[in-house]
Amino acid sequence: MLNLAIDDIRLQRWIDELAEISDAAPPAVTRVLFSEVDLVARRWVKQRFAEEGLSVREDAVGNIFARWAGSSDSQPAVATGSHIDAIPNAGRFDGVVGVLGALEAFSALRRAGFKPRRALELIVFTAEEPTRFGLGCLGSRLLSGAIDPDRAAALIDADGVTLTQWRTKAGLEDARAGKLASVRLAPGHYGAFVELHIEQGPLLERRGVPIGIVTAIAGPSSYRVTLTGEGGHAGAVLMPDRHDAGLAGAEIALAVERAAQTSGSPDTVGTTGVFRQLPNAVNSIPCDVTLEIDFRDTLLDTRTAAWSRVERAIADICDRRGVRWDLEVINANPPATCAPVLVETVTEVCRALGLTCDRMVSRAYHDTLFMAQVCPTTMIFVPCRDGVSHRPDEYSSPEQIATGVAVLAHTLAELSSAAQA
Amino acid sequence: MLNLAIDDIRLQRWIDELAEISDAAPPAVTRVLFSEVDLVARRWVKQRFAEEGLSVREDAVGNIFARWAGSSDSQPAVATGSHIDAIPNAGRFDGVVGVLGALEAFSALRRAGFKPRRALELIVFTAEEPTRFGLGCLGSRLLSGAIDPDRAAALIDADGVTLTQWRTKAGLEDARAGKLASVRLAPGHYGAFVELHIEQGPLLERRGVPIGIVTAIAGPSSYRVTLTGEGGHAGAVLMPDRHDAGLAGAEIALAVERAAQTSGSPDTVGTTGVFRQLPNAVNSIPCDVTLEIDFRDTLLDTRTAAWSRVERAIADICDRRGVRWDLEVINANPPATCAPVLVETVTEVCRALGLTCDRMVSRAYHDTLFMAQVCPTTMIFVPCRDGVSHRPDEYSSPEQIATGVAVLAHTLAELSSAAQA
Repeated sequence: MLNLAIDDIRLQRWIDELAEISDAAPPAVTRVLFSEVDLVARRWVKQRFAEEGLSVREDAVGNIFARWAGSSDSQPAVATGSHIDAIPNAGRFDGVVGVLGALEAFSALRRAGFKPRRALELIVFTAEEPTRFGLGCLGSRLLSGAIDPDRAAALIDADGVTLTQWRTKAGLEDARAGKLASVRLAPGHYGAFVELHIEQGPLLERRGVPIGIVTAIAGPSSYRVTLTGEGGHAGAVLMPDRHDAGLAGAEIALAVERAAQTSGSPDTVGTTGVFRQLPNAVNSIPCDVTLEIDFRDTLLDTRTAAWSRVERAIADICDRRGVRWDLEVINANPPATCAPVLVETVTEVCRALGLTCDRMVSRAYHDTLFMAQVCPTTMIFVPCRDGVSHRPDEYSSPEQIATGVAVLAHTLAELSSAAQA
Repeated sequence: MLNLAIDDIRLQRWIDELAEISDAAPPAVTRVLFSEVDLVARRWVKQRFAEEGLSVREDAVGNIFARWAGSSDSQPAVATGSHIDAIPNAGRFDGVVGVLGALEAFSALRRAGFKPRRALELIVFTAEEPTRFGLGCLGSRLLSGAIDPDRAAALIDADGVTLTQWRTKAGLEDARAGKLASVRLAPGHYGAFVELHIEQGPLLERRGVPIGIVTAIAGPSSYRVTLTGEGGHAGAVLMPDRHDAGLAGAEIALAVERAAQTSGSPDTVGTTGVFRQLPNAVNSIPCDVTLEIDFRDTLLDTRTAAWSRVERAIADICDRRGVRWDLEVINANPPATCAPVLVETVTEVCRALGLTCDRMVSRAYHDTLFMAQVCPTTMIFVPCRDGVSHRPDEYSSPEQIATGVAVLAHTLAELSSAAQA
């Protein structure tokens, strides 16, 4: 087995440097797709990749590929990676650990004299977070063919700017809409994909286990509910005469919670993450409300049944209140199953390193959910404090991250050296 | 009785011209205190006042006074007026009818050869709407001493800008904080105040009555509830582990509705006009919520009892959900009673003009609520279509408005000519 030294000090410095490229005051990180800071962060990681001697290319949606050529480049490459975009007021580890940790894995392998047989590729996926377009994993959806390129090109943000306009503004080559079709990977392009990530849940920390190996990813779905009631002066319109869209929204948010709580599966989660009402003035009855709801489960049947209860509740609530409603499916994906052979490889690596590990389900989704449609995948999780993520106080220690990087590096070395993926 | 000709065509043109000075696309009007368009609108009305030969002054908070001198200026002046600021996405009549209608009343009186004995003053009150600082009737509160000038100076908007900074930016004289104390009126400054306004409710239209005479104004109160839960990834944190501030906010909004509906008085209204949640991203559990709640009644006792039920509900909901809460009283004013002698004067004017009129309560509050603390007051209401206000489709016809202007003009003439107000 290779003797690898993970440089956790340099890795932590990279993580901290990248966190400073942000639209939020530290320790918070805000880095929305194609914002100025996102563009700066992209240049920053490409610079780091070049310094490590990797050859860098970028596709038409901005996915970045940093390649370490192998001795047998006719065989499908082995890939790893994650994302660097961050929702408003997030932390510094989500996604970033899987990008900069993979870079350190490559670097440690090189320092140990490792020579890849299959090429190794580090992917930075565009817009894992749904902030700008309300749709997560944009880059990996396009890579895997899970979204139609024409639909993707027509995505519009809250300011009415399309993806095509943003790509042009970001200076991406081939920013013309049609070119998005070129992003999709040819069948068999990758032999395997392994993503390193913080757990974003409390289980590893609670159990004192340093490594989680992901066997399945919960299937996400998200919905936009648009409510149109009747506005009016908050003082003048008596209670029986009202059609308050804000109160319909409040009832729907509570119905989402109830449906998730009573689905019969402990894995069902439902969240009204977005609640926007207009005119949002203290003395006006809310007339227009937009909700965005996230609903997921490890079991597709349970999720479908619970969501249909939410749909019935929306109709009942709006009917009773005299509020018009419209429901749009932003996104609905089945759960993904990871490749048993890769789960076994990571398990063997942990055993060889003397690390305990737990097999587990990922409740959060990741680019791996979509990469699973084009090649065998798994994920390596490291603990994070109190299970907290998407918050400024998100935290994994340098040691916890370095352990994950070591497991990733050994796993990549195994897969790169294998005759068959 | 004077023979007055109301120029409803010019008045409608004025209303339409002012509506174009707006941050919203027509027919909507948005004119927030001290925004660029508000400053333009202020210059526009001062220009109109000057053209009518009125002498114009502005006080330290931007209240505008247009004076028509009387033959007996030692006696307290008779005042009228309203406001020209508008909440986001509002209509063109709320407030504006009482300003431009009063100007047309002065003009019609002058054309009819009327000479005031007591001076007539037209007041444009600063920030009747609470949009910028969450506090309505800023100008009339300061005029009447209902708010401490130091507290007013320290008001801060959502962007962290204080009233003092806005006053400086707006180019008001005496914008130093201390000068706000100069706004307060000396006792006995006005002999009477009469405000013309659209009803903002459906009663006059339903009954086919052209004029409402206000005998009392419902007492408004407003509150800010700040909720702090725990954020986290919408996929990763299971339902039993959540402290979702958005759902606590949803329950509170529904508790406000229930308390108003079951207060025992049909006049109690409760509205959660502002619902703001952070980070407001589809895949994040809401951790911070701000609600702004409007709660009012014509009876102080009913309002107090109903609101105390809301307070208990807030404590129960937040306790059960493990969400921290903070409750701030933005504002709580008792109902106001109008002066019987002025109600009688307006009634006599209607009788002389052959107009039916109804005595009524104003459920919306107005600058009159505060002017009632310094002089006798009443209000003249005209119908508005479907009772709609604070919306782009707010509407009163030129004829309905002209009728109100005629009643106002005759009333002002009566009061100006009286030996005793």
